[in-house]
Amino acid sequence: MSTILPIDAARLWARLQAMAEIGATPDGGVDRPCLSPEDSRARALLARWARARGFGVSVDPIGNLFITRAGRAEGPAILTGSHMDSQPSGGRFDGIYGVLAGLEVLEALEDHGIETARPVELVAWTNEEGARYQPGCMGSMVYAGKRSLEFCVDVVDGHGIRFGDALASTLAALPDASPRDGAPRPLAYIEAHIEQGPVLEQAGVPIGIVSGIQGVRWFEITVLGTSAHAGTTPREFRRDALRTSIELMAALQEALNDPADRLRFTIGRVEVSPNVPNTIAGRVAFTVDLRHMDRGTLRHAGEWVHQICECAAGPCQISVEELFAADPCRFDPAIIDTIDRAAVSLGLERLALPSGAFHDALFLADIVPTAMIFIPCAGGVSHHPSESATPEHVADGCRVLAQAIIELAG
Amino acid sequence: MSTILPIDAARLWARLQAMAEIGATPDGGVDRPCLSPEDSRARALLARWARARGFGVSVDPIGNLFITRAGRAEGPAILTGSHMDSQPSGGRFDGIYGVLAGLEVLEALEDHGIETARPVELVAWTNEEGARYQPGCMGSMVYAGKRSLEFCVDVVDGHGIRFGDALASTLAALPDASPRDGAPRPLAYIEAHIEQGPVLEQAGVPIGIVSGIQGVRWFEITVLGTSAHAGTTPREFRRDALRTSIELMAALQEALNDPADRLRFTIGRVEVSPNVPNTIAGRVAFTVDLRHMDRGTLRHAGEWVHQICECAAGPCQISVEELFAADPCRFDPAIIDTIDRAAVSLGLERLALPSGAFHDALFLADIVPTAMIFIPCAGGVSHHPSESATPEHVADGCRVLAQAIIELAG
Repeated sequence: MSTILPIDAARLWARLQAMAEIGATPDGGVDRPCLSPEDSRARALLARWARARGFGVSVDPIGNLFITRAGRAEGPAILTGSHMDSQPSGGRFDGIYGVLAGLEVLEALEDHGIETARPVELVAWTNEEGARYQPGCMGSMVYAGKRSLEFCVDVVDGHGIRFGDALASTLAALPDASPRDGAPRPLAYIEAHIEQGPVLEQAGVPIGIVSGIQGVRWFEITVLGTSAHAGTTPREFRRDALRTSIELMAALQEALNDPADRLRFTIGRVEVSPNVPNTIAGRVAFTVDLRHMDRGTLRHAGEWVHQICECAAGPCQISVEELFAADPCRFDPAIIDTIDRAAVSLGLERLALPSGAFHDALFLADIVPTAMIFIPCAGGVSHHPSESATPEHVADGCRVLAQAIIELAG
Repeated sequence: MSTILPIDAARLWARLQAMAEIGATPDGGVDRPCLSPEDSRARALLARWARARGFGVSVDPIGNLFITRAGRAEGPAILTGSHMDSQPSGGRFDGIYGVLAGLEVLEALEDHGIETARPVELVAWTNEEGARYQPGCMGSMVYAGKRSLEFCVDVVDGHGIRFGDALASTLAALPDASPRDGAPRPLAYIEAHIEQGPVLEQAGVPIGIVSGIQGVRWFEITVLGTSAHAGTTPREFRRDALRTSIELMAALQEALNDPADRLRFTIGRVEVSPNVPNTIAGRVAFTVDLRHMDRGTLRHAGEWVHQICECAAGPCQISVEELFAADPCRFDPAIIDTIDRAAVSLGLERLALPSGAFHDALFLADIVPTAMIFIPCAGGVSHHPSESATPEHVADGCRVLAQAIIELAG
């Protein structure tokens, strides 16, 4: 690395605070649903900041918003970004940090009159959270060809509003963004994000270099028994779905315990029916969330779930359904190296870690060399009003992003 | 026993069917809330049948309805009965069977011109189920001096209607029932009821002689952890309230396993927060329902619950609250013997068993020699539209009740 690009840490912090006003909740959090009036206001503010610096503003058919700083030549860009929508009781950093860190990189390049060989482009993906319209990551999935726009427009929210109609209103509210479609694929994609976990904070390390995104398998296990009176029913006549479920959950918990903690196992939801203290449960359903960076390990772990459920003793009927599965994704080694060099050149400690949560980068990685930068967040908390990150970490993450982009953009 | 009193099994069955029309639900069940218009109609029908045979009809301040067949002398009566209110999705036998079996005994005595030394009295207790007004068994508790009428009248139902106002309407709808208060305590109380459990049906025995009512202790165990992302949170930082609860529930289930099945242990309710597949649970609360016929065993079992929770390992905070406790009750040996002799004289097989459910007899047992007769019910099911009993068992239970009452009434 030849030079260090100075970023304006105060400007970045001020912009994070300004964005947090859009959809601000009384408890200090943010509620900015995808394609809502708040989303439109956030898009308009981003576009205003971009135009003030002469950057191009364009939008693709699913509403992904692009801010472009031209390079010496036209052609494929270096892409960075994240998303601006939030969970209903979300925080001030998830998603929006990656967008504003990207904008800061473009502005810092502009501030210092640095020309890059390739265009540098910022993107705010539509509907990453999946809170209003399911599934999440619609913008990046359509961009990467994983879903069709036609599928997305017909999805309906909890109030019966079609995604397509909400998208049309959002696009109409930003009339001077140029429409774009079929732009050349970028050369690389880097996304900056808060970690959403406690690893960096606990290690006291400011930069996480993300090795990939864990694969995940979700199972729902249903145990059917017979509901009966807790006082009057002797054991030999009981078909207690909760007793069987407790034994089964304990067995799964033990069998899928990875001493190295690479395999993550979580039972997060238990639904009991009728769920009354003096009635033996007739039906229990519980979920298993399995995550691992290795596809084979994840496959074996899923087979274990099936096998343990099949071998469970007792009078109840047990069934296993796989609700969801996503393969692990490993980020591009060359982009990872670029980020690593950027951190080294800035004298910042860094740690390699997988992402346990999904990001738009998961879908970009399929079509473009991709990697991510994590910064610590307080207590590892996200999707909560108390979500927070320090100004220092916010700035450090942006500096690493800037250096990596300069190297890639030439 | 000198003679066998023939009862009219067809009349008893017909009256059960007629009563089941009052509050009948489309699924074949009964919804007859305490002190509702349906309760008034049931009371009016019972009083009409009683008056047609010249029996006395009276009502005490909490609305317990008494039907009296005089004896050769005035003075304390032999009392039998049960309740006429039902659960919201209740059946055609729970409670009403004991009332109509009692009426059939009075009518059979009348049919055959049998004079008894002592009056024989039937009672329909107010609000046994506790479905509309809590707690249940208000009528028998006030009668036995366990609760004051003043406490009961101020209880409010889910629609804000005071018990006292509903009681006044119910009493007004039966103006020719004589008010009664402070009548002499009966000499004995016998209640006939469906078993609400599967023991008699499985054993193929028509008569259960109830030894008493199990004591019960209800605990709620609360486990506090920290809710966090299932994908991003390494094990060493997890405070998984559900993982700890699963281990704790499994330990309790194992430790309180009584090979003789005298101690009944049920976990019936589990509440998980936030109860989402990909979020580590921050809070879990679950209940333990313990029942046993012996007070000391029940006390020890409760101590075990506390001790196991106190000794539980892991990073979560665990607390135990006792929600409810009732001592076991043993019925009167002399009345039990009387019932047993009655069954023998009729050539009916019988089985001694405790009641796992509460009944008005629990409170009567405190002030009067008391016992109960159970008949089988299909699949042990009660509090459900499918609740049922055969005409033969209905008749057999009534025959045993009649013989026992004749012996006691002299």
